[in-house]
Amino acid sequence: MKPIVFALPGNELLSRKIIEGTNAEQADFVLRSFPDGETYLRVLSNMEGKEVIIVCTLHEPDNKLLPLLFLCRLLREQKAGSICLVAPYLSYMRQDMKFKSGEAVTSDYFATLLSSLADRLITIDPHLHRRVSMKEIYTIPCDVLHAAELISGWIKKNIPDALIIGPDAESEQWVAQVAANANAPFIILEKTRSGDSNVKVTVPQVKNYRNHTPVLVDDIISTARTMIETIGHLQHAGMRAPVCIGVHAVFAKNAYKDLKNSGPARVITCNTISHETNAIDISEMLIRQLQKAMEK
Amino acid sequence: MKPIVFALPGNELLSRKIIEGTNAEQADFVLRSFPDGETYLRVLSNMEGKEVIIVCTLHEPDNKLLPLLFLCRLLREQKAGSICLVAPYLSYMRQDMKFKSGEAVTSDYFATLLSSLADRLITIDPHLHRRVSMKEIYTIPCDVLHAAELISGWIKKNIPDALIIGPDAESEQWVAQVAANANAPFIILEKTRSGDSNVKVTVPQVKNYRNHTPVLVDDIISTARTMIETIGHLQHAGMRAPVCIGVHAVFAKNAYKDLKNSGPARVITCNTISHETNAIDISEMLIRQLQKAMEK
Repeated sequence: MKPIVFALPGNELLSRKIIEGTNAEQADFVLRSFPDGETYLRVLSNMEGKEVIIVCTLHEPDNKLLPLLFLCRLLREQKAGSICLVAPYLSYMRQDMKFKSGEAVTSDYFATLLSSLADRLITIDPHLHRRVSMKEIYTIPCDVLHAAELISGWIKKNIPDALIIGPDAESEQWVAQVAANANAPFIILEKTRSGDSNVKVTVPQVKNYRNHTPVLVDDIISTARTMIETIGHLQHAGMRAPVCIGVHAVFAKNAYKDLKNSGPARVITCNTISHETNAIDISEMLIRQLQKAMEK
Repeated sequence: MKPIVFALPGNELLSRKIIEGTNAEQADFVLRSFPDGETYLRVLSNMEGKEVIIVCTLHEPDNKLLPLLFLCRLLREQKAGSICLVAPYLSYMRQDMKFKSGEAVTSDYFATLLSSLADRLITIDPHLHRRVSMKEIYTIPCDVLHAAELISGWIKKNIPDALIIGPDAESEQWVAQVAANANAPFIILEKTRSGDSNVKVTVPQVKNYRNHTPVLVDDIISTARTMIETIGHLQHAGMRAPVCIGVHAVFAKNAYKDLKNSGPARVITCNTISHETNAIDISEMLIRQLQKAMEK
C-alpha cells in the first residue's frame, strides 16, 4: 500500500518532492478557517491501515498546533495505520530548563503533546542546546537529520574562498564540521546577549582573512540580530560582502527585511521552512529517511 | 485559602471584577511571546493547594490553546489544588456532527482537550445547536449560565417600545424568553444561508410594528451578515433605526466595521468578549456561580 502525504499549509513545495520521491499518494483533504477563526477539517481519502506522512514545519507553532491535533485525532478515528510527522523545523526547543523559578519548561510540554499525536517524528537540526538526545523529551522515535554536509557542499561549490563565521561557542563543533567539509577556515564570534533581541558581537582576527568571502552560518535565523551586528563589524573591518547561511528561515517579524537592509549580504537558507532565500534542498535527505522508516 | 485568578490576555477587565467579587488573589505570572512566536510562561505565585480560576474567553481559539495548555500543565506541576476555567465565550460548538463524510467533529476534539486541562468549566450561552447538554461532549463538570434575563433587563430599561427580532427558528425559544421578560413582541426572521457568510433574510409582518424600535438579538455576532441584511430590510420597510444585541462580540474580521457602516444601528453586547460595544455586564452572574462552585 502506498503511503499518503498530508501537506499542511505552507508545506506544499516540499510535500510535492516527498510525494514524488517516496512514490506516495497525495491526501485529499480540506483544512481551512471559518470567518471566526475556527478550523474546519475534512479528510476525503480512505485512511484505513494507511501509512500517513504529515508534512508540517513548526515555526510560529501556536496557531498550527490545534489544526495538527485535529488532523491526528481524525486520522486515528479513521483507522490510519501509522502517523509520521515530518517537521523539518521543530519549535519549542529553547526553553529546556527553568532558568528562573516558576518557568514553564515548554520544550517538555510540547514534546509530550507531539508524542501523543504522532507515532514518529522526523526533523532537521533541532536546537538541542543542553540536551544530548531527543529521547530525553520525546517518547516516540525521532529521526534527527543534519544539514551540515549540504551546507558545506553548497559553500564549496559557490564560495571557493570562504571564511566560515560561527555565532557562538555552543555551535563551534557544528561550525568546525561545516568548515572542514568545505575546506575553509573558520572563526567563532564573541557574543554577549541581553534580552531576546539585543546582541553585541566582535569578530576576532577577521582582518587576517581580507582575501576571503565571509560566510556567516547559524542553525536558526530568527531575529537575525547576530548576523546584522556581524555584517556591520565586517563592513567596518573592510571585509568583502558576506554570505549569510541558516538552516531554518524562521525570520521573526521584520527580521528578513532588516537583514537585507543591513548591508550588501546574500542570504541563503535550507528549505526546512518555505522562504524566498531557500537554496539548499533538504528533500532528498528527508526522502531517504522516510524510505528507511517505512521499511521497518 | 483565597482562590487565585489568572487573567489571560484580553480578559483583564472581567478578571478584575471577578477578583473583587470573589475576594480572590491576583496571580503573579508572565505570559508573553518570544520574537519567533513561541510562548514564554512563568508563574511566580505559590500554587500549592490553591483553587485556581483561569479567565480565558475563547474566541479566535487556535492561537490561545497552546498557552492555555502550557499554563494548566505548569499549574499541575506546581501542585495547584483545582483548576476552574472561566471561558465566557466557548468556541468549537458549531461542528457538532459530520455534515459530510470525513469531517472532523471538532466540538468533540476540543471538548476532550479542555476536559484534560481543567477540573471545571464555566461558560455563558454556549452554542449548543443539536446537543442538549454539555455532558454529551465534556467529561468535566460544566456550569452553563444564560444572559437572556440580563438582556431582557437592558431592553426593558433602555428600549421601552422594543420589537424583538430573532435570527432563526432554532433560536425561537430563547428569543421568546427574552421578549417575554422584556414585555415586548417578537418576530423570527426567515433566513436562507449559502456558505459561511452569505445569508438572505426576510422580516415577516414587520410593517405592523412601525411604532416600535426593532431590537435584533442573537447569541453570537460573528460575520454579522444576518444583522446587516436585516438592517437593510428594516430600512427598506421604513422602520426606525434598530438596536443590535449579541451575547458574544466575536466580530469575525471586519464584521464590526461592516455592521456599523450598514445603517444607523446601535450595537450592544455582553462582556463575555471584551469589546467597545460591551454594555451588559455578566460579571455578577459569573461571580455567583464561582462562589457556588467553590463552596462545593
